[in-house]
Amino acid sequence: MADTEPTQTPPTQEPAAEDADASKGPSKSELKKRAKEAEKAKKAAEKAAKQAELEAQKAAAEVDFATEFYGKLPLNQSQTRPRRARAQIAALTPNMDGETVLIRARVQTSRAQGSKMVFFNLRQRTDSVQALLTVSQGKVSKQMAKWAAGLQMESIVLVEGTVKKSPEPIKSATVQDVEIHISQMHLVSGLETILPFSVEDANRPEAEIDASEEAQFKRVLLDTRLNNRVVDLRTQTNQAVFKIQHGIGHLFRDYLDGKGFIEIHSPKLQGAATESGASVFKVNYFKGNAFLAQSPQLAKQMAIAGDFERVYEIGPVFRAEDSNTHRHMTEFIGLDLEMAIEEHYHEVLELLDGLFLHMFRELRNRYASEIDTVRKAFPADEFKWREGPEGTLKLSFKEAVDLLVEDGVPREVLDDINTENEKRLGRIVRAKYDTDYFIIDKFPMELRPFYTMPDPNDPTLSNSYDFFMRGEEILSGAQRIHDPVLLAEKMREKGIDPASMSSYLDAFKLGCPPHGGGGIGLERVLMLFLKLNNIRRASLFPRDPKRLEP
Amino acid sequence: MADTEPTQTPPTQEPAAEDADASKGPSKSELKKRAKEAEKAKKAAEKAAKQAELEAQKAAAEVDFATEFYGKLPLNQSQTRPRRARAQIAALTPNMDGETVLIRARVQTSRAQGSKMVFFNLRQRTDSVQALLTVSQGKVSKQMAKWAAGLQMESIVLVEGTVKKSPEPIKSATVQDVEIHISQMHLVSGLETILPFSVEDANRPEAEIDASEEAQFKRVLLDTRLNNRVVDLRTQTNQAVFKIQHGIGHLFRDYLDGKGFIEIHSPKLQGAATESGASVFKVNYFKGNAFLAQSPQLAKQMAIAGDFERVYEIGPVFRAEDSNTHRHMTEFIGLDLEMAIEEHYHEVLELLDGLFLHMFRELRNRYASEIDTVRKAFPADEFKWREGPEGTLKLSFKEAVDLLVEDGVPREVLDDINTENEKRLGRIVRAKYDTDYFIIDKFPMELRPFYTMPDPNDPTLSNSYDFFMRGEEILSGAQRIHDPVLLAEKMREKGIDPASMSSYLDAFKLGCPPHGGGGIGLERVLMLFLKLNNIRRASLFPRDPKRLEP
Repeated sequence: MADTEPTQTPPTQEPAAEDADASKGPSKSELKKRAKEAEKAKKAAEKAAKQAELEAQKAAAEVDFATEFYGKLPLNQSQTRPRRARAQIAALTPNMDGETVLIRARVQTSRAQGSKMVFFNLRQRTDSVQALLTVSQGKVSKQMAKWAAGLQMESIVLVEGTVKKSPEPIKSATVQDVEIHISQMHLVSGLETILPFSVEDANRPEAEIDASEEAQFKRVLLDTRLNNRVVDLRTQTNQAVFKIQHGIGHLFRDYLDGKGFIEIHSPKLQGAATESGASVFKVNYFKGNAFLAQSPQLAKQMAIAGDFERVYEIGPVFRAEDSNTHRHMTEFIGLDLEMAIEEHYHEVLELLDGLFLHMFRELRNRYASEIDTVRKAFPADEFKWREGPEGTLKLSFKEAVDLLVEDGVPREVLDDINTENEKRLGRIVRAKYDTDYFIIDKFPMELRPFYTMPDPNDPTLSNSYDFFMRGEEILSGAQRIHDPVLLAEKMREKGIDPASMSSYLDAFKLGCPPHGGGGIGLERVLMLFLKLNNIRRASLFPRDPKRLEP
Repeated sequence: MADTEPTQTPPTQEPAAEDADASKGPSKSELKKRAKEAEKAKKAAEKAAKQAELEAQKAAAEVDFATEFYGKLPLNQSQTRPRRARAQIAALTPNMDGETVLIRARVQTSRAQGSKMVFFNLRQRTDSVQALLTVSQGKVSKQMAKWAAGLQMESIVLVEGTVKKSPEPIKSATVQDVEIHISQMHLVSGLETILPFSVEDANRPEAEIDASEEAQFKRVLLDTRLNNRVVDLRTQTNQAVFKIQHGIGHLFRDYLDGKGFIEIHSPKLQGAATESGASVFKVNYFKGNAFLAQSPQLAKQMAIAGDFERVYEIGPVFRAEDSNTHRHMTEFIGLDLEMAIEEHYHEVLELLDGLFLHMFRELRNRYASEIDTVRKAFPADEFKWREGPEGTLKLSFKEAVDLLVEDGVPREVLDDINTENEKRLGRIVRAKYDTDYFIIDKFPMELRPFYTMPDPNDPTLSNSYDFFMRGEEILSGAQRIHDPVLLAEKMREKGIDPASMSSYLDAFKLGCPPHGGGGIGLERVLMLFLKLNNIRRASLFPRDPKRLEP
């Protein structure tokens, strides 16, 4: 490609005439001579001008020598398909020293050193590499360096360069042992607006910002991040968070597929506002109304009455609660399961426990580097659980209350365990049992929804359980009532007209095996495993009472 | 347990007195004698009555000998956990001859033979086995047989019995080489209502019903099925259909996970009614309104602008269209993906093609028996696709139109290819190319949504494609416009105010790589692969303009 070899001499401008001596009056011959000289000078000037023009043309030619090597590409409309291999930054190794690679990446930062060198930090997902552009005869022109140095942060570029082993580790990049020496650089997609914050700032740990006395680093507030979520998602932290979110879903299915479950998809549009006290969203449905499912509870139980035996669902769950807390959203992802039981609801509880242990272990095994990346931004004690024969800590509701009373909480306020006491219990359990993960079984009947099976010996208790991570509830489940007579009775006790839920009730009139299940909040598990402190950080585009965008 | 051994003689009633000869008048002594005899007879009668009572008590004891072996179980509230292994019908084999097993199953049918034998067809999911209860001294009482014969269809029973090799194949069951000889039978869950139709009737192929001249078999209509979906789902056909549905989702993720995609979850609640002409559902959102996402289109593109590079989502999609056809629902499951492209949108098209081939192959490999089960109820030519070096048939829109014109369709009506002509094209392609699966590329720009990238050479065409199965569209996709200026221009051309979609538009102002993707309708793929003829059969609890229940 680089087959033009322009001259290197810069264009020069020469003075065209000398000053004349004006002290004496000129003779006639003298005037004639002068006129001749002026004519000559004029010609010389014209010649010089012509020369200058040629030089300028040459200079212009010098700018051109690298034009093919840089610049903005035309809009990609799939004009051509040269099928040139593109490299991934994560795959660059010192073994590739000397190889030419082609990489599409973001310009995270750039720094010019004089007019002849530009350093770039190029980024793909969680990975980054240093790239270097150096002015060099016939290869990289000054103009190219100037253009490259002027690229806005977050521009997407296509870079051709040579892989070079780096003499010492490059600390600013995730790939530290190589750098790219750029030979070509083109703009694939630029910015048409002002960047609300730099990805580098957004990726900086809070601790580092706090430590900087002059507040030299900008702190990017959560609301600013969420308003500009597309940029915020590009941080290495968020790339890692959502890779781990993907991992949780994958491990959930993986484990259950191995246990004979099938995945179902239940409708989110419901004919009636049902299930529990929680408010539901109303939808205009042609000439009538529909309601958004606040869980797949009814449908998954009906699937059990329909003989699927073991089912799970991953899908959105809608809650019309005006809760503006760190752990509530109006829409979140439920990991739900339901299964027939043979003898006892602890079959479900134990399966769920096995599921969580599988998830914890495999997250740590398969996502170690992503967990490390997140921990840089959100420092946290490593999440702890109990392995081995003793197994997961299981407390009864009564035992949990006793632990809180021992710790100084008045028993009178412990009819229910509120959020604050849940957290306190989490700290007590961590100190006493060295675990961030435990189960509370046998909740009082009055704290649970109408479809919960009462305890066989004490009707004030129920066959229900919650699972906790770092002192916050992440799963709620129970054995369900499969007898239609008892179910209708419990509905009435909670003020629900059984007629309003007839297709649900009918499912049990048509015969249904004993069964139980649970619902897990995906974003809560993610938030608590990584200690992200706000559930919105665990959701791609979070929704709360005040946020419906982006 | 069977340690009472009652006598077998039935209780008898003896006549207490003889007739007296009344032809002669009685003497005094005679009268005395008679009085004595009467007294004697009375005593004898009393004795006999006592005896009879004892016999009756014994008889009652005979009824009791089996009471522990049958009857209704108390409501399972997890009272005990004996941890007795339960067997699966599918796992029964002749090798288990003589083994005692414990099985929870549905009574699909029962048939008494005299008063001493009852045959059952017991069912679990797609599997069934014959079970036999025979009156036998000290083991199965007549009373037990009578009770068992009276069990309603669809009752859930817990059966203990012995596995026996069957002398000849039992055609009415899926497990044909063994039967169960019942020793105990308990009711786990009965019916509290009339069964709307039998699962056996619901499972019967249409063809078989048509062939029965006297209409001896009841045809269960689709609407009746959907109104009583819980019973309908229990048919072996539906158990297989939803196992295959699970398979499609599993294979979709499996393939994409292997290609570097991550799963995302985008919000279904949107701040604005956007995207295309299709109507959206309006939701009451606290004091304002929200709208249900009619696809994850905007969110998944924003995820690409957020640098996830390759994303997919499986989730509900809502369409407020009053379409009452065999292939429209108001809520369905979208299998969506989006990916950055390096050079050309055919990178996406080829990946999608690879995905479908993977799904077709593995469905046939892994779900052969379920496909067979469904085919019994829905006879269909086996689904065909092209393998080998020639690969999948790809037509341009123009070529597709030409095929239809050749076949006699007037070119004037072919600005768009309507549903009827799509089906016709499917038949033409099947006849000419021997495939049920093909791709149409290069749709006219005016037929596609505003975010579709125009063709680089002909602005009336676009870089977009549809995929077809048996002449019906199952995927729609395209390269998208990643340039915000062109995007806003196309919005305005379609009458959309760019300001109404500012957070979407902003994503591209912040730099976005060229990208493309597609959306697959899960239920359509399932319906067409299995030729179920109505999309409602491919949805667990379908929703259409007239149906929000169950």
